[in-house]
Amino acid sequence: MAKQKILAAPSIRRLPSYLHLIKDAKERGLDYISGTVIAEELQLEPIQVRKDLTITGIVGVPKRGYPVDPLITAIEEFLGWNRENTAFLIGVGNLGTALSGYQGFREHGLNICAAFDSDKKKIGKAFHGVPVFNLSQLSEKMTEYKPVIAILTVPSEYAQEAADKLVEAGIKAVWNFTNVKINVPDDVLVQKEDLSSGYAMLGVMINKRQNSLK
Amino acid sequence: MAKQKILAAPSIRRLPSYLHLIKDAKERGLDYISGTVIAEELQLEPIQVRKDLTITGIVGVPKRGYPVDPLITAIEEFLGWNRENTAFLIGVGNLGTALSGYQGFREHGLNICAAFDSDKKKIGKAFHGVPVFNLSQLSEKMTEYKPVIAILTVPSEYAQEAADKLVEAGIKAVWNFTNVKINVPDDVLVQKEDLSSGYAMLGVMINKRQNSLK
Repeated sequence: MAKQKILAAPSIRRLPSYLHLIKDAKERGLDYISGTVIAEELQLEPIQVRKDLTITGIVGVPKRGYPVDPLITAIEEFLGWNRENTAFLIGVGNLGTALSGYQGFREHGLNICAAFDSDKKKIGKAFHGVPVFNLSQLSEKMTEYKPVIAILTVPSEYAQEAADKLVEAGIKAVWNFTNVKINVPDDVLVQKEDLSSGYAMLGVMINKRQNSLK
Repeated sequence: MAKQKILAAPSIRRLPSYLHLIKDAKERGLDYISGTVIAEELQLEPIQVRKDLTITGIVGVPKRGYPVDPLITAIEEFLGWNRENTAFLIGVGNLGTALSGYQGFREHGLNICAAFDSDKKKIGKAFHGVPVFNLSQLSEKMTEYKPVIAILTVPSEYAQEAADKLVEAGIKAVWNFTNVKINVPDDVLVQKEDLSSGYAMLGVMINKRQNSLK
């Protein structure tokens, strides 16, 4: 895949937290929410919040803050969360099962419509209402479901093989939860998720604290 | 919790990918790995890789690259992955089960030694070799296992209640996988994980592609 530069990646990564908070304000009947309140709640600098929300194109009103409804709409549009994003889940292990049951995804339009595995004990069953098919049925089911995204949760050693099958079947966006880099053509988007990143952050924080106590 | 500024957070988040790649080079018998090769493999700019690796204190050798062994040691030390980090898992749902079976964690010293739940069907059992206790036994088990980290994977509505119990039991670092912010005293570290962040990135990439095709 060609280098895909997404400007302001850290800002984009923060938008889901903003959205959660702003929707919460809406539920509490608020019409406006101030950048300072958002900053306090999320332990960010107010200037960072203002900068991040610039992406959405919504401007705050002096002394009142951001209008809640337009801001929700703008964030959802920016993230593509205002449409349904159908997805295939590739690999029905614990992580795959966890992701398919993750409430947050459904709320944000991510609809895992079918899952695939090579384990005969899983094929033909359903979990969280999602049917499990044989990996060999991928192309056939692509025509039927027309998914936008494939979520890759197979064991790392099968990641490239599964990715090749996804590309062959015509998938154009892969959310890669394995810990290896997959090689795909330039026109296929890949978002790599690394659960170790958070553990890295935590490890560094613990180190710093231990050093400061010495 | 007070604002905890971790400088170079994106660099820290990339270190696990570097480590994976460098360990792979070691397995292939290489003594040196060039920044350019790392950059190509991870689809980053070479200057970014050089900047990120500055954190480790290891300097590359002209025309040869970074010495593999010292670089592995330096990254692991920087991340605190050279020691065993014992952890409690709070909430034995699909995500909790997935995390406790995640190979990458064990390789990096994260040892989930006990799990806690309030579901009587789960208490007294074990999964992936990890015993499940009643949440009410938290303090007692703290004395026994002395965990460094608590991994929070309860349903969001129980997040604060569980966090309060963790703080009461004396835990000093929480890895929060729920989608709510938890309130804890200043001396408790929190790393919040948001699985929606990657979905946000993917949504923006898909949007950009669709707009460029118009």
